[in-house]
Amino acid sequence: MASWGKRLAGVRGVLLDISGVLFDGSEDGGVPIPGSVEAVARLKRSQLKVRFCTNESQKSRGDLVRLLRHHGFDISESEVTAPAPAASLILKERGLRPHLLVQDGVRSEFDQIDTSNPNCVVIADAGESFSYQNMNKAFRVLMELESPVLISLGKGRYYKETSGLMLDVGAYMKALEYACGIEAEVVGKPSPEYFRSALKEMGVEAHEAIMIGDDIVGDVGGAQRCGMRALQVRTGKFRPSDERHPDVKADGYVENLAEAVDLLLQHADE
Amino acid sequence: MASWGKRLAGVRGVLLDISGVLFDGSEDGGVPIPGSVEAVARLKRSQLKVRFCTNESQKSRGDLVRLLRHHGFDISESEVTAPAPAASLILKERGLRPHLLVQDGVRSEFDQIDTSNPNCVVIADAGESFSYQNMNKAFRVLMELESPVLISLGKGRYYKETSGLMLDVGAYMKALEYACGIEAEVVGKPSPEYFRSALKEMGVEAHEAIMIGDDIVGDVGGAQRCGMRALQVRTGKFRPSDERHPDVKADGYVENLAEAVDLLLQHADE
Repeated sequence: MASWGKRLAGVRGVLLDISGVLFDGSEDGGVPIPGSVEAVARLKRSQLKVRFCTNESQKSRGDLVRLLRHHGFDISESEVTAPAPAASLILKERGLRPHLLVQDGVRSEFDQIDTSNPNCVVIADAGESFSYQNMNKAFRVLMELESPVLISLGKGRYYKETSGLMLDVGAYMKALEYACGIEAEVVGKPSPEYFRSALKEMGVEAHEAIMIGDDIVGDVGGAQRCGMRALQVRTGKFRPSDERHPDVKADGYVENLAEAVDLLLQHADE
Repeated sequence: MASWGKRLAGVRGVLLDISGVLFDGSEDGGVPIPGSVEAVARLKRSQLKVRFCTNESQKSRGDLVRLLRHHGFDISESEVTAPAPAASLILKERGLRPHLLVQDGVRSEFDQIDTSNPNCVVIADAGESFSYQNMNKAFRVLMELESPVLISLGKGRYYKETSGLMLDVGAYMKALEYACGIEAEVVGKPSPEYFRSALKEMGVEAHEAIMIGDDIVGDVGGAQRCGMRALQVRTGKFRPSDERHPDVKADGYVENLAEAVDLLLQHADE
């Protein structure tokens, strides 16, 4: 493999995944991954541009940022690209009235959206709200539409909480896709539009940007398909088999965010 | 299209789907589809061989037969091919110890099976038991196995109860397949092995048999792929668009089981 110097040359902007990179979530707020608070601070003091690009869809962007600040992270709402506000914009633009299958914590992102007489379904990482009854309700709404529209906030397979692996929204998206014979529109990683909106907000071209994430497919593969480079951290939902993934090869594998930032600060301006 | 005489010539055995053909289910037992009780009786008085081939996996075969007899159907356990007893045999043969994601009503079919220290997951049409917590538990069992085995009792997309359409086990099978990156083994229609076991139990060759069902893919397409003929009834989960299905064309569409039996008794020995 090429030297780190070659692999990181010309990087001007860094997109950071949040869950599994900054902290491991849990029902009672989660714990920061060791070294990550300092790593974010060092990155923000450098000349590199930084933006957070998450698929978190259980909480509103405001609640997520408050939680991260509580853990000591230097982060503000305007620095975060999150799927619920992005979806809210899309719904407005297209005049869509969603049936929401989401957790209460993220419902405020849709406060300005008309949800009467729904003409589409939006699903997020709903956790316990993915009951049979709620899934069946969403299914019936879709089956009654002439051209069913299903919008999924991300399509992750699973994520890691301190208690263990947790099924993510992608699994439930697949269930509804199969039951209705349709294909969902994904708002979130690895959708190229989503990465491009984060790059635009950061003001950096794809070839000058690098994504750091724990998801070999959603973070690494998705970013690379947009022309970015990508590192996988060995934290969060990382599994050793990811380094032998049949389709996706990261530009580098690092122990954690702290090591990634060490390497970036050393080599990015070479 | 060829005449009914040509289409039904040489039929010696009839496989009948149960839900949506004999009766429409509901939480309080369901209602027979008009004319079906008499149609089954007429069929059994004829020279045609008859067998019931169901994907019902919420109830044990005994409970299902008791319910149908209560509704007036002439049916016994030994005439029914059902996925739970079939899966139970497979588990025994292969020394598999399942984690069961099923409803309590069908658990008795697995009474003889060791479920300690599971090395596979079996899912059935679990209805309300498809909670996030139960799905996540099954997911974690699969993710901890070196070679995960997922057995799904059928792969139906949905079925119809008197209250409306209901998500079937296939949707949840897809969710686990996607989350774990695996492919499930299906015990039930449209698995060719399953149709073949029903034909064997009936003692009729595929080219002499006809399937009658309400599912254009699971019943009609599945039976045709095994060399059988198949009729779709316009009851149960039938939707008008089924008659324009891109991949599957039934050998005939009939209003209900009563019309199918009329035609069979008139033409099968031509």
